[in-house]
Amino acid sequence: MPVTVQFMRRIAEAAAAETLPRFRQQGAVSNKLSGGFDPVTEADREAERAIRALISAEFPDHGILGEEHGIENASSSHVWVIDPIDGTRAYISGLPVWGTLVGLTVDGDSVAGLMSQPFTGELYYANASGSHYEGPGGSRKLSTRKTTALADATLFTTTPALFKGEKRALYDRLESQVRLARYGTDCYAFAMVASGNADIVADPGLQPYDIVALIPIIEKAGGVVTTFSGGPAENGGDILAAATPELHAAAMEILNG
Amino acid sequence: MPVTVQFMRRIAEAAAAETLPRFRQQGAVSNKLSGGFDPVTEADREAERAIRALISAEFPDHGILGEEHGIENASSSHVWVIDPIDGTRAYISGLPVWGTLVGLTVDGDSVAGLMSQPFTGELYYANASGSHYEGPGGSRKLSTRKTTALADATLFTTTPALFKGEKRALYDRLESQVRLARYGTDCYAFAMVASGNADIVADPGLQPYDIVALIPIIEKAGGVVTTFSGGPAENGGDILAAATPELHAAAMEILNG
Repeated sequence: MPVTVQFMRRIAEAAAAETLPRFRQQGAVSNKLSGGFDPVTEADREAERAIRALISAEFPDHGILGEEHGIENASSSHVWVIDPIDGTRAYISGLPVWGTLVGLTVDGDSVAGLMSQPFTGELYYANASGSHYEGPGGSRKLSTRKTTALADATLFTTTPALFKGEKRALYDRLESQVRLARYGTDCYAFAMVASGNADIVADPGLQPYDIVALIPIIEKAGGVVTTFSGGPAENGGDILAAATPELHAAAMEILNG
Repeated sequence: MPVTVQFMRRIAEAAAAETLPRFRQQGAVSNKLSGGFDPVTEADREAERAIRALISAEFPDHGILGEEHGIENASSSHVWVIDPIDGTRAYISGLPVWGTLVGLTVDGDSVAGLMSQPFTGELYYANASGSHYEGPGGSRKLSTRKTTALADATLFTTTPALFKGEKRALYDRLESQVRLARYGTDCYAFAMVASGNADIVADPGLQPYDIVALIPIIEKAGGVVTTFSGGPAENGGDILAAATPELHAAAMEILNG
């Protein structure tokens, strides 16, 4: 059974019904870890529950892996991967650059996915028909821009502080060679690469649920997304996305020293 | 003549008519300085022109200072201060965290202002009736949250790289004491303090047009905004905004060594 845009929209709407009423409401924040600041909200938990219910009803044989509620049906060839709120720090700071991520892997390859931002009313998604945008300004196919030189590129990363040890020096070298660097946008940055508004995202230490949904959105728009060493991005890790193969190669060379 | 909400909305709409159609359109970017990356768009210039026309028609005796087109009627007691697109780097990266800033000073004190984000449909404004929000989720009075301890605070800054020399060490000390730090949001960060979603903004080297519009929005919502040394913010410089007087004092103590 294909993954239709109608199903994508239903997922986005079910998640929005849990995330949006709680966005910018004080007091909804709890701490996942008592030591550090790793917030998880009621919205996170309830949105994942709603998304799981839709997937289970539509695709009862498929597996589901979510940030909040673990894995079920793990032996299936088809596994959905969910991050109900990617960018919880943006969410709790009131910034509309978080998103709901839902992707589908088949035999480990990401083949469909969505990123929904309900406050702005944006849906970025990919399925067998390609990579698409719906939101303010209308609907359109997504296409990366044709940047090939680092000197012309806009680079995003969550924060340079996530690069530890010698990786930090390599990241700093990359940042020094691009036109513009910006921090703190999580999934929204990958959507900006897919939609031709930015050129590179370099984010270390991602989980599968941080990236699986975004892989087909970027790839079907013309971009490249792998680990820093060029491996498949589906398992997470240090992830590099770029608008073109040339730009991806140039960034990867620097990040590998 | 009072500054009405209707006039605020007209300004926001006139600016949006110039900024929004050009947002996320490739090719609209030019370089203000040939050396570095200080982009200014056609949208910037045309939005300021539209805003100036409205102000001149409504308040012909008032002065106007804008980022793009300089000052006129400088000797007036009443001077409007305009930044048509605050956050041009966000604008050219596709992120909906830039804004149009328009403020009014009377004898040098900022008494009214607006921050409009047309992609999200948000208007933050202050006039004689207080500080207000209109946008998704409805309309409401703005109120800062009651954070008094750095350990509970969310801190925003455009980027730590703007703190030079010993200022950087003092900024890093401040960042190490807060709960969460975020970068890269310009005017949107100040709006998040006014609306109770964040607690502190510390931004060095601001121009008057970066901050004048935001001062009454923050102050009338219960916050405090001054230079790092506690002076008036209207002339720009190193600017510190905080949700409460206690938090402002705590941050100022650190930033001054």
